[in-house]
Amino acid sequence: MKIYNFSAGPSCLPESVLKSVSKASKNFQNSGMSIMEISHRSELIVDLFENTTLRLRKILNVPDNYHILWLQGGASMQFAMVPLNLLGQKKSADYIETGIWSSKAILECNKVGKANVIASSKDSKFTFIPREYEQNIESEYLHITSNNTIYGTQYKVIPNVENPNGFLVADMSSEILSKPLDVSNYGLIYSGAQKNMGPAGVTLVIIREDLVGRNYRDLPTMLDYKTHVSKDSMFNTPPVLSVFAVNETLKWIESIGGITEMEKINNRKAQSLYDEIERNSLFFSPINKDDRSMMNVPFIFKDTTINESEFLSYCHSHGLMALKGHRSVGGFRASIYNSMPEAGVNALISAMQEFEKMGQ
Amino acid sequence: MKIYNFSAGPSCLPESVLKSVSKASKNFQNSGMSIMEISHRSELIVDLFENTTLRLRKILNVPDNYHILWLQGGASMQFAMVPLNLLGQKKSADYIETGIWSSKAILECNKVGKANVIASSKDSKFTFIPREYEQNIESEYLHITSNNTIYGTQYKVIPNVENPNGFLVADMSSEILSKPLDVSNYGLIYSGAQKNMGPAGVTLVIIREDLVGRNYRDLPTMLDYKTHVSKDSMFNTPPVLSVFAVNETLKWIESIGGITEMEKINNRKAQSLYDEIERNSLFFSPINKDDRSMMNVPFIFKDTTINESEFLSYCHSHGLMALKGHRSVGGFRASIYNSMPEAGVNALISAMQEFEKMGQ
Repeated sequence: MKIYNFSAGPSCLPESVLKSVSKASKNFQNSGMSIMEISHRSELIVDLFENTTLRLRKILNVPDNYHILWLQGGASMQFAMVPLNLLGQKKSADYIETGIWSSKAILECNKVGKANVIASSKDSKFTFIPREYEQNIESEYLHITSNNTIYGTQYKVIPNVENPNGFLVADMSSEILSKPLDVSNYGLIYSGAQKNMGPAGVTLVIIREDLVGRNYRDLPTMLDYKTHVSKDSMFNTPPVLSVFAVNETLKWIESIGGITEMEKINNRKAQSLYDEIERNSLFFSPINKDDRSMMNVPFIFKDTTINESEFLSYCHSHGLMALKGHRSVGGFRASIYNSMPEAGVNALISAMQEFEKMGQ
Repeated sequence: MKIYNFSAGPSCLPESVLKSVSKASKNFQNSGMSIMEISHRSELIVDLFENTTLRLRKILNVPDNYHILWLQGGASMQFAMVPLNLLGQKKSADYIETGIWSSKAILECNKVGKANVIASSKDSKFTFIPREYEQNIESEYLHITSNNTIYGTQYKVIPNVENPNGFLVADMSSEILSKPLDVSNYGLIYSGAQKNMGPAGVTLVIIREDLVGRNYRDLPTMLDYKTHVSKDSMFNTPPVLSVFAVNETLKWIESIGGITEMEKINNRKAQSLYDEIERNSLFFSPINKDDRSMMNVPFIFKDTTINESEFLSYCHSHGLMALKGHRSVGGFRASIYNSMPEAGVNALISAMQEFEKMGQ
């Protein structure tokens, strides 16, 4: 039975990536050594990092005045690194709260300086992206979570930053590489790899060069973007295997036709799944229609007396895995990242239809 | 031709580990999913982490009052996390400087509080482990680098901490798991995985429970040991694949007879290589005899007019890789971690003997 894994992350990866990782873990580029055994100071690994960076730059059309970094610690580490590096003494930054991840980013900012929460959909259980808010003209930056993995909301239009010296910061962990991106709209973008980009263990940061080295405070060396920019992400031993898997994932995106084609496929997948949720008499989407995520699709039973585990078991027996909603939300959630094939989404839609018929 | 990789890290891994990683990257425990694709909240991965922790606890006989953590960022991140978590306001800690890594640890401590460098072998190019020093009775802890990867020195006897409320902190990145360890002598031990324990991308911390949550300052959540203790190293998405490889490496140590047997093999390897360096008319060891590392063996030509690249090329053509000394030291360095088989060391010894004959 073909298994389709709807996990919110770590999540499914293209078959070609799994094969390449499997091969390179035994013998990398006919070196006779595993990718895990080779020094990061060797030409083979330095080349790998350069290739991965260049490939990402090309795919996302990253302008020359932005640095691309491969770090550790996940988006959670970036929640702290962003204010530590970019928030001046006694300054504040604006944050829009659209879920648990932005709440965590706000918490970390408040340890460094002041986070102005200029809008929040918390009272509505994060079912929409706020549109009404006033920015603080003095704020150094505006922080958003561009796609909300848990709640299934996504910005379709990003905010303009009103402070002429300000800039936009975005946590793109669960949408990066799903569609074209105009990097020049942002000061800094960060993203854990484990959704669209590769396995857990590496974190992408794209930072505008004038934001590097602001030296607002005496930082631990490892938390200073300057450290990693000056050493091309090799200040200390980097997570080589994870970066290799990212490079293979980027190759796969190229092979299917690049980021524009990726977006088309993602749109088709999301559209057909949302259409079925609307059509099916059993399910509905709690999310504001204009803000629905193309990546994470939560849905719940209309009739709350039906036991959710029945549908989950039915899916499981059909090879449709990890569809349980986040523990804080309940219901179901289909994460349909880049690597989820259209056949997987279609299999889920069929299961929803069959399950509906079974109840009649 | 059999390749032997003497890299200082990332470095060679047991064949069984490479095979297991290769297999699990395609299909983990017959789940139909790659180890890279499975949520860290799933039973499969939670079990993996528990197993890995238990296995390490058993192999190193870690007492119950110590927590075992799997973090990201390498030893370089620990250089900062140790003082941030364990150095009280306006307090100081003692550091012994035995190489670049301890110098970096000292630098990070001085950003947080005061590091008293009570002894250093810097003026002698770090060719020995200092024995003469006076500890500060007020110092909160004493920090050592137990094995120095670059210079090839190693503590054979660890210092007693004189402050009755103090404790020993050790960076064991390049010696952990090479021999039995009495964890109760330490307050905290840390180690990057990429030498004896697995691939790059995961960092082991062993911390005595009373040192967790001292709350000396408002830390970024990710830099607080308390965060990771309370969530069993799963506060955010951990580096799953690297931890899997660590577990496989630990299994391999068990399979060869455990940590006591490991030490015996390591002693034999180091002894035979040092014996050859002493015997061979071409080479010598610049390191104080009593402080020579069992893991990293630097050696240089007696006659400085011989071109080092000739010996390196000769080794390369015989499948003996990565023997170039660190850029700051020159000469040669054979890193003979756990996974370097005795046959690899013997092949190097033969090459040294053949090269000696060729010059005669």
